[in-house]
Parts: sequence; C-alpha cells; structure tokens
Amino acid sequence: MNDEFYMNLAIDEAWKYQFLTYPNPAVGCLILSKNGEILSCEAHQKAGMPHAELNAVISALQRLNPNLKAVFKTAKNANELYALALQNHANLLSGARAYVSLEPCSHHGKTPPCANLLKELGFAKVIIATKDVSEHAKGGEQVLNVAGISTQIGVCKDRADELLEPFWAWSNGNFSFFKIALTQNGVASGGIISNHASRTHTHAIRSLVSLLVIGGNTVRTDRPTLDTRLINGGKNPDVLIYSNETKFDTSIPLFSIKDRKVTISNSLEAAFERHFVMFEGGGNALSNLDKRVKWLLIYRSNEFKDAKNISLNLKIKIMHRAEFDDNELLWCKIIN
Amino acid sequence: MNDEFYMNLAIDEAWKYQFLTYPNPAVGCLILSKNGEILSCEAHQKAGMPHAELNAVISALQRLNPNLKAVFKTAKNANELYALALQNHANLLSGARAYVSLEPCSHHGKTPPCANLLKELGFAKVIIATKDVSEHAKGGEQVLNVAGISTQIGVCKDRADELLEPFWAWSNGNFSFFKIALTQNGVASGGIISNHASRTHTHAIRSLVSLLVIGGNTVRTDRPTLDTRLINGGKNPDVLIYSNETKFDTSIPLFSIKDRKVTISNSLEAAFERHFVMFEGGGNALSNLDKRVKWLLIYRSNEFKDAKNISLNLKIKIMHRAEFDDNELLWCKIIN
Ligand SMILES: [Zn+2]
Ligand SMILES: [Zn+2]
Repeated sequence: MNDEFYMNLAIDEAWKYQFLTYPNPAVGCLILSKNGEILSCEAHQKAGMPHAELNAVISALQRLNPNLKAVFKTAKNANELYALALQNHANLLSGARAYVSLEPCSHHGKTPPCANLLKELGFAKVIIATKDVSEHAKGGEQVLNVAGISTQIGVCKDRADELLEPFWAWSNGNFSFFKIALTQNGVASGGIISNHASRTHTHAIRSLVSLLVIGGNTVRTDRPTLDTRLINGGKNPDVLIYSNETKFDTSIPLFSIKDRKVTISNSLEAAFERHFVMFEGGGNALSNLDKRVKWLLIYRSNEFKDAKNISLNLKIKIMHRAEFDDNELLWCKIIN
Repeated sequence: MNDEFYMNLAIDEAWKYQFLTYPNPAVGCLILSKNGEILSCEAHQKAGMPHAELNAVISALQRLNPNLKAVFKTAKNANELYALALQNHANLLSGARAYVSLEPCSHHGKTPPCANLLKELGFAKVIIATKDVSEHAKGGEQVLNVAGISTQIGVCKDRADELLEPFWAWSNGNFSFFKIALTQNGVASGGIISNHASRTHTHAIRSLVSLLVIGGNTVRTDRPTLDTRLINGGKNPDVLIYSNETKFDTSIPLFSIKDRKVTISNSLEAAFERHFVMFEGGGNALSNLDKRVKWLLIYRSNEFKDAKNISLNLKIKIMHRAEFDDNELLWCKIIN
C-alpha cells in the first residue's frame, strides 16, 4: 500500500458528497497513525459543516480514545468541535500522517483554518493531492512547512483536480451538468427508471442548484413536478423551460410549486450566468446539448427494458461510480 | 476501518482474477501488521501458481525486508516459494492478522497447505469470510485453532460466497455464463463495441472455458473467429453452434481454427454437461437464454451510439465492476 492507495480512499470519500458541498469544494481526508494504521477517512459533507480535516481528526481521536465521543457530542457547531479537538487531542495524533485531496485551508472562514489544526495536533507529514489556488484559502502548505511539518504535493493530482472541477467552475461563474436515468440497455422513457435512493439523491442536488433547465418537449410529455419532496426542508429550484413555444398547460405540476420562478425562453444565456445549473431531459435534449454543459450524471437501473433506447453519438469519461441500493450513479465527463 | 473494510479489499483483489483461476476458486488475502498497517493484499491468479495466502505473505515479507526480493526471485515454482517463506520469515509476521476470503486450505495440493504457512509464521489471528466445504481442502480453521491462532468466520460472507459461486458450480458439474459487449445506450451491434483490453480479457477467459456456445444467427451475421489470438499461448475453445439449421458457410473464420471441434446442434444438453461454459451472442440470444446460465458479463464501452439497442426484459444484480482502460466490465448475476 502506497501514498496513491491512501489518497484514492480520501478522494473516494469526497466523491460521496460531490455537489452536496456547494458552494464549497468536495474534499476528503484520511489519517494514518504513526504506525501506519488507517485511523479515519472522512469528507466535507455540506457547507457550514466541518471541513474534511476536522471530521477526520475527530473520527481518529474517537477511535483512539472512545471516551472522547461524549466530549465531542457536546459541540453545537464546527467551531466548537474545532476547539474541543485542540483541547482534547492529548497528542494522540502526534506523528500521524494526513492525506488530503485539497491543500488544507489557511483562512478563518466559517471554521478556523485546517492547516493550523494539523499543526497544533503534531502531525508529522501532510500529503496533498492538489494545491488550493483560491485567494482566500491558499497558503496552507506554507503554514505547515513553517511549523516543521513535511508536505508532499501532487499525489493523485489528476483525480483530485477532476473532483474539484465543479468547484472551480461555479466559483468562476458557471458549472452546468445534465442528469438522466437509463436502464441497462439505454432506455430513458416509459415511467420511472431510477429507484427511490437515486431519486432522493437527485432531490438533494436539486435543492442546491441555482437553476433547473428542462426542454419544452419533456415538460409536455412527462408533466414533471421537479420538486425536492424526498428530502427534508429542500429548496425547490427555479426552472427555465427551454422552448420556442411559450404556451404551456399550467396544470403541469411544476408550475404549482411554491416559491418557484418559472421562465420560458428560447435562449440559454441566462442559465449560463447562474453558478450551478442542472439540465434534465431525455435523449433529444442530450443529443442537442450546449457545449457549456460539461458533466453527465447517469443513474442506471438494474434492469433491461423491452423498449427503444435513446439514440445519439456521444463519448464520455466515467470519473466515479456510486451505488444507490440496486442502482448505480455514473459521474461522467462529456468528451464529445 | 473495521474487519469488513479489510475483507472487502481482499475480495476486490480476488475479483480481478475471477474465472482466470479455473478450475481453482478465486481467493484474496490481505495482511495487517501487528500495529494495524496494511502490508499486502494479493490474490490467487491462476491454477498452479501460489495461493492467495502465499502471495500475500511473500509480498508482506518483501515490504518489511526489501532484501528478500532477491531471495524469493530464485523460486522456480510455488513449492519453492513456500519453502523460502518458511526459511526466511525471521518472525517478521509474528502477531500479524490475515484476512482471507476463503478458509485457508489444509491439504497438500500442487502447493503445501496455507493453514500451515500462517501457523509457522506466527500469525495472531486469521479472519475468514467463508468456510471451505470441499472434502479435500477443508479443515484449515481447525489447524489454526489447534496451533493457538484465533479465527473469526463470516466477515463479508455474502460477498465471498458470490465470488465463489462459479467455483462451486463448475466443481459440481457446470457453470455457465453469457458475455455481451454494449455501448452506454445498450447497442450491441454494428462493429466492434469493446476496446482492446476488454477483448484481451475475453480471450483469456475463452482460453479456459470447456466450451463456447453461440447462436446460429450470430454466426451468420457476425462471421466470428472466436479465437484467443490476443493472448500468448491461448487454447481455442471448442464451439457449439446452437441452431436448427445445420448448414453453415464454412468459410466463416471460426471453422478454420486449428485443434477446435465445432458442433452444430439444436440442443444445449451437451453444453450443460461441460464444467465451464461461455455463451456469446446478441440481444436475441440474451432474450431466450436458458435458465441454467446464471451470470452475465457486460463489457460496456464509453460511448453512446446512434443505433438501436438490444430490447428485452431482464433484471440483474451487479456484483462487481472492473475497468479496462475506458471500458468497464460488469460482473452480473441474472435475477430474472
Ligand atoms: Zn479547511
Ligand atoms: Zn491454500
């Protein structure tokens, strides 16, 4: 087992929360004891919640001293958790190694800086997949080096950069992706394809996006709701119906969702001015996809269906897979 | 990280050699040092080559003492490697833990028993996913227990039993599976779908099977060769063409392969009398599959193609995925 093995575990953990950390980046952190034992592997899960490094530190400390569970449970937020880690670490992680998919932050954001946490707990070495180039957060490596902690940069850099693509894109203006559900033999139509767990995941993403774009034909045929009812307290996204025809049957459920703005337009320009945009639709929409839509999310069921597939020419790169019970989610980059 | 985590790594490693160990079972072994560091994770790769436990022991010893690489390199076969491990271990693995997907063997087969190896090297504990119930190999746990080594049975048992399904089936008479290559949108026809690495894997499997079954229509349409030219020294399997019509154009390449017996029959009974049988064909063959064919191997390309899919109703369980460059291989069980 080498550095790549451990970093890949950290990156895999981060992928579980891809998109769900918006507007933050997805980040993972694995901690190896002085003796080389894996103590924890955690990720940043949601904006406002602890960073990956803090989650991994808490999990590792609890493993080494189960009595700390009760202590950490008293924390009401990430700041308090951070303070409790500093007060209670008892040098348990002295000499440990951290594998982080992104350079630890050096700034006081919603939480104090992770570079400082690793420094105070006496980590011996921090292995970093890729540098943080953002103005406010960069510089973590320097903080560590000044404290005498050795660092190594670039382990699994390509995978880490892929993981961060949405973050850099939405930070710089726009990240857009297309979501589709398919059977094993490429059928997208004729009733619900994906299972409850997949649809719950879709609803969690919908509740974070700035805008949902859907084609007029899909709206007429599927009469969708496009809400987030499967998750608690989800925000229902605004919808842009991409259509030349402006008249729609307003009894289609999506028009009756509270606090939602629905726009009908034959232009997508307004969509690409929003930070995080989800496109939904069928094979026709995917065939005619705007080049600015970079990623494709495929929820694939575990069934073949006796029906016609979506038919188009498209090349993808599968970056990561997740399982939702008997469905799989393929995180894909569109190549052409 | 818990026992399941380590056992899953051992099982994942074993899956890399699924079918390729024929007639032996696919088995994986992970070794954790006394301090909890992962030292190695290896599998049985091919009949006649070292068992998973021996491979993992050699790999762990070399990691702890790199000078042993030159020593182990002198071994001409698995027996010599086993003897060298016993002579040179220097108690480096004393107190270590082994995670094995199948109970270590207790018999002298082509190699001496693995249970004895773990005993002699002073392992503290052996975690076993599932028991070996074969008459000649069972009893490894008892050997360990008598020597004072603690054992634990049943960690990830379901996954280990799935991994072993082909082994138990071909040992008891017959294991049959169907292989197909599909695009992302379920297209199986119109030229080569899968990449070179996928086809090389298919050829490696073909060279081990007892018989290859293919439908008459596929033979007429695709005019296949069904050989193993992509691997060195591959054996070309005998072919059963499943067809009511006995006349075929014998210029179809499959008829000209040396040392191959081709049978044309409208019955599959002879196939199910062979130990390890591969079915190939298109959507029509898959739609009409005999119930005795239990597994489906899907090689999936990274492209959508503007063409018609294979259309049928079928439910599968994906047990494992492998990557072959930009293709994926899905190891599936047919549910109905
Ligand atoms: Zn941070
Ligand atoms: Zn053995």
